[in-house]
Amino acid sequence: MSETPVSETPASAGSETPACAALTARARALDAADVLAGRRKEFVLDDTVYLDGNSLGALPAAVPGRLDDVVRREWGELRIRSWDESGWWTAPERTGDLIAPLVGAAAGQIVVGDSTSVNIFKALVGAVRLAGEGRDEILVDASTFPTDGYIAGSAARLTGRTLRPVEPADVPAALSDRTAAVLLNQVDYRTGRLHDLPSLTAAVRAAGAVSVWDLCHSAGALPVGLDAHGVDLAVGCTYKYLNGGPGSPAYLYVRHGLQDRFDSPLPGWNSHAEPFGMRPAYEPAAGALRGRVGTPDILSMLALEAALGVWEGVTVDAVRAKSLALTDFFLECVGAYVPAGRVDVLTPLAHAERGSQVALRCADAGEVMRRLIARGVVGDFRRPDVLRFGFTPLYVGFGDVERAAAVLGKVLGEASE
Amino acid sequence: MSETPVSETPASAGSETPACAALTARARALDAADVLAGRRKEFVLDDTVYLDGNSLGALPAAVPGRLDDVVRREWGELRIRSWDESGWWTAPERTGDLIAPLVGAAAGQIVVGDSTSVNIFKALVGAVRLAGEGRDEILVDASTFPTDGYIAGSAARLTGRTLRPVEPADVPAALSDRTAAVLLNQVDYRTGRLHDLPSLTAAVRAAGAVSVWDLCHSAGALPVGLDAHGVDLAVGCTYKYLNGGPGSPAYLYVRHGLQDRFDSPLPGWNSHAEPFGMRPAYEPAAGALRGRVGTPDILSMLALEAALGVWEGVTVDAVRAKSLALTDFFLECVGAYVPAGRVDVLTPLAHAERGSQVALRCADAGEVMRRLIARGVVGDFRRPDVLRFGFTPLYVGFGDVERAAAVLGKVLGEASE
Repeated sequence: MSETPVSETPASAGSETPACAALTARARALDAADVLAGRRKEFVLDDTVYLDGNSLGALPAAVPGRLDDVVRREWGELRIRSWDESGWWTAPERTGDLIAPLVGAAAGQIVVGDSTSVNIFKALVGAVRLAGEGRDEILVDASTFPTDGYIAGSAARLTGRTLRPVEPADVPAALSDRTAAVLLNQVDYRTGRLHDLPSLTAAVRAAGAVSVWDLCHSAGALPVGLDAHGVDLAVGCTYKYLNGGPGSPAYLYVRHGLQDRFDSPLPGWNSHAEPFGMRPAYEPAAGALRGRVGTPDILSMLALEAALGVWEGVTVDAVRAKSLALTDFFLECVGAYVPAGRVDVLTPLAHAERGSQVALRCADAGEVMRRLIARGVVGDFRRPDVLRFGFTPLYVGFGDVERAAAVLGKVLGEASE
Repeated sequence: MSETPVSETPASAGSETPACAALTARARALDAADVLAGRRKEFVLDDTVYLDGNSLGALPAAVPGRLDDVVRREWGELRIRSWDESGWWTAPERTGDLIAPLVGAAAGQIVVGDSTSVNIFKALVGAVRLAGEGRDEILVDASTFPTDGYIAGSAARLTGRTLRPVEPADVPAALSDRTAAVLLNQVDYRTGRLHDLPSLTAAVRAAGAVSVWDLCHSAGALPVGLDAHGVDLAVGCTYKYLNGGPGSPAYLYVRHGLQDRFDSPLPGWNSHAEPFGMRPAYEPAAGALRGRVGTPDILSMLALEAALGVWEGVTVDAVRAKSLALTDFFLECVGAYVPAGRVDVLTPLAHAERGSQVALRCADAGEVMRRLIARGVVGDFRRPDVLRFGFTPLYVGFGDVERAAAVLGKVLGEASE
């Protein structure tokens, strides 16, 4: 893993040097010019600098009222009638179609429901079946968020394939006519590294294998382009940049061209062609519905649907532009405020390789993060030594970024005294 | 399937005959003596006779306020801190321990999360693995709710076993040293027939196979006795008699003695021995936690936790006694109010074979149910010709029962004119 030492510029953390004053002024100017600044008011926020939206997105202001209506009126008054009258039954595909434009998908290819882990299982077993009998190997991102690897191991075991972990950059060399499926993360959860989805997807396709992308750390933060790049299957969570709430349901994308052959290992009654026919023989529904399993979790699903309203009128390109500006500015401020040599930047500096977070390697990172949080700057700690800061362009501003770096500088300055 | 014609007693539906007046008086007396009558105020109800709690339980009055606090304070204000500070992380096992006494399980054997279908998959693949290599057959209830059969088919396919549907009564004869696992419903979703869990479980065990019980239509309505009867694995939903809300998460029971060997086909990061170690190799957690998969759905989970508060101080024996009294009284009232020959009772008359619902076969059942609902009596229709009425002892009274039968009598009386 490449590591980039931060700027060697010495800085008196938090002191009122001309350099710091200049950064404060820059932050103000950047905030004033921010075309997404108005979106912040659509979230419930306080004076905390919340840089953990890549773990749990902030609460959209529309959610509490909507959920109260779902509970009190739709469940409490209409009860069972709401499955039809309140549109509960069709929420998985309706909510999927709200996510679709954020990941570059035409309608009718995404259903929402179940956890990311469960969707990875559906996608990977489905991918192996799509690839056919002759291919006996599943490749998985060696630096993946662990659940992907665990579930891939189970999918391999149950389908009689071999699981082979490889670094994403080494995937093209590892592909062969033995490769059935390849599971990759678009953005690495720890370092924030952005992998090259277009070229990797093309390589997987050229090898005759099936691509499965995990979008947990990219959807809602940068362009994905599922349709444009010919991705076969994709999964993602909705509680990070999509702000769906704690443990909100994940989603599964199956591209149109594969839907008729998609053969789910979890053929629950919700994916039946005629679910209320209560027929003993399974017959899969047409389209993306085939990715449904059991009764959808309505409270969380409708909270997510309401949360997705904040994207109305927002382009992912605008989000990406601000995201890069935020992470650039954070790196610059860290260079200015943090004592030299105290952190190494794990996140790539090249825009083409950067997601929407910055990961800093730092001695005693757990304690450092505790102190940051105590001072109102919330990021998170990933073992053994990583400080992780996520930048959610819909509600994080440049002033937040400068303050976070300044507080980090102070905390590390104190620790070194 | 046995069918019992209802009483031939002619009745002028809804007319003020002495027989009807006597039933009205009986209903009043039964309600006055009902030790569970006080529980009704813990639910949000109106003057509808709600006999569909076996599909979606009514809203417990404590839920809206609790969920509002979860959303506005725990998510909105504490955000990521709530995973620790608000106890989100441990909610699956904590909520499981609230369900445990309702199904006769000691603590530490149930985790809540995922849908019923997904839990059936975990349980059945886990059961096949527990049974060992030599056993190549899975038995499944031939009249099961369809999803159980569909998922069992997938589990059989992925583990290389053969799926064999059998009627529950025929299970003892079908068991052999080839049997790996047996998936049964304690109560049939359509007819309301209660199967003999103790003797069937003992037969499965005697054959050296692993038992898996689906408790969707029994938990919260009658004693289950998982521990007492030596059940191996069980699953159930929480939105029927447990009133968790639409699509609230299901649960998985793995008895203590099997937990160390339970080998889940969905080994997500939440079931890892050290989930935040983010280690590439999977190592399962000890205990029931091994049944967890991905990030739990917190909004629905905590709504369920609040909903389970209505059980405080309630014994399942009291619920069962009232349930039988309600279904007995309903059958008596149907006999009195419904024109002779218009319905056949599909639900067994013997208490030992009856769950907490009454299923009536009836010509034009779909239209009949629409008319019942229009007059404030809510049950449901199951194709092709079944009227289904569920009796939830915590909030249905004997007056409701009499009114439902009287309205049914009127609707059927009109239809026959």
